[in-house]
Amino acid sequence: MKFSPLLAELINALTCLPGVGNKSAQRMAFHLLERNREGALSLSNVLHNAMEHITHCQRCRTFTEDEVCEICRHPEREASGLLCIVESPQDVLAIEQTLSYKGQYFVLMGHLSPIDGIGPDEIGLDKLESRLQEGRISEVILATNPTVEGEATAHYIAQLCANASVDASRIAHGVPVGGELEYIDGNTLTHAFSGRRKV
Amino acid sequence: MKFSPLLAELINALTCLPGVGNKSAQRMAFHLLERNREGALSLSNVLHNAMEHITHCQRCRTFTEDEVCEICRHPEREASGLLCIVESPQDVLAIEQTLSYKGQYFVLMGHLSPIDGIGPDEIGLDKLESRLQEGRISEVILATNPTVEGEATAHYIAQLCANASVDASRIAHGVPVGGELEYIDGNTLTHAFSGRRKV
Repeated sequence: MKFSPLLAELINALTCLPGVGNKSAQRMAFHLLERNREGALSLSNVLHNAMEHITHCQRCRTFTEDEVCEICRHPEREASGLLCIVESPQDVLAIEQTLSYKGQYFVLMGHLSPIDGIGPDEIGLDKLESRLQEGRISEVILATNPTVEGEATAHYIAQLCANASVDASRIAHGVPVGGELEYIDGNTLTHAFSGRRKV
Repeated sequence: MKFSPLLAELINALTCLPGVGNKSAQRMAFHLLERNREGALSLSNVLHNAMEHITHCQRCRTFTEDEVCEICRHPEREASGLLCIVESPQDVLAIEQTLSYKGQYFVLMGHLSPIDGIGPDEIGLDKLESRLQEGRISEVILATNPTVEGEATAHYIAQLCANASVDASRIAHGVPVGGELEYIDGNTLTHAFSGRRKV
C-alpha cells in the first residue's frame, strides 16, 4: 500500500519545487492538510494566476504582469539616462534596497554561456542594442556578477556600447565594507589595489 | 520598489509551506517562472483538488479522498482481527514498507498532550472505543512513538482495551538492528535488557 492516489499525486507535484525531495514533499503535504488548508487553497490560486499572467517586461525583461514594469514606467528614471545591466530580478531588488540608484534596469535573465547554448539573443542583447540605438541612454552601468561568465557578458555588452557610442562603466570590485583584509581572497585584493582612488 | 504585486503575492503565498522562508520562496517563485510553468500549473490543480477532496477515513482516520480507505476496505485485513495504533499516516507507510504486518490501522493524527489542549476526543479515542466494543478486534498493537507523550497515549489506550476486554501489546523497544551497543543510549539498553527473550 502507498498513500491514497490523490495524496500521492500531491506529494509528487510538490517535488517540482526546487530543493524539495520526496520526504520534504510528504512533510509539506501533511502540514498543509492538517494545519493550513486555507493557505494551500490560496497558494493554489496565486500559483495559477502567476503562471498565467506573469511575463517579461517589454522594456527591461524582468518579471511582471504588466506590459511594461513599474520601474520602466517611472518618468524620472527614464529622464536619468542611466541603464544598469543585471543578471536577475533578485539583483534589481538588491540594488533597489540600497536606495542609492535612481536609473533604469535591463535584466538579462542569465549570462552568456555558449556551452549551455546561451548566446547574445537568449539574454536579450538584440533588444538592448536597439535600446542603445534610440539615443536616450547616456551611461550603461554593468552590474553582472563577478564570475567568469558575468565578466564575459559585461565585456561583450561594453563592446555593444562602444559601437553605439554610449559610455559604459563596471561596478567596483574590492574589499566589502565590514570585511577584514586578512580573510579576503587574493583576487579581490588585486582588484581593490588596481581600483584604488586618491583620498 | 519591490517585485510586481502578483509576484510579491506568489512569494508570500509560498511561505505557507513549512520550512520555506522569504528567500527560499523567492528562489522557488523564480525557478517555477523561468523553468517549470507547467509543473507549477499542475501543482496548482493538484493542490486545489487535494485540499477540497482529501478528508479522514471514517474507520481509521488516515488521510484519504474515499469515505473508507483502501486498507480498511481490505477483507483479509479485516478478518485478521489485528489493529495497530499509530500516530501519523507516515507511520502507516513505514510499517507497510516492511511487508510484515497484515492487519488494520488506527491513526491518531497526533498524541495526547493536555498542555496543548489535545485530549482523548481530539485524537479520535471515542471512535476507537466504539470500534473496540464492536467485538471484531482480537488484539490491539500499540505502535505510538517511544516519546513521553507517545508512551502516555499508549498507556491510556491500553486501559481502554482492558475495559473492553481486548488484548493490547506494545511494540518492542531495544537495540536497533545494525546498531552498535557502545553507541546506544542507556534508556534503550535498559529496555533491551528488560525485554530480553530466551534463545
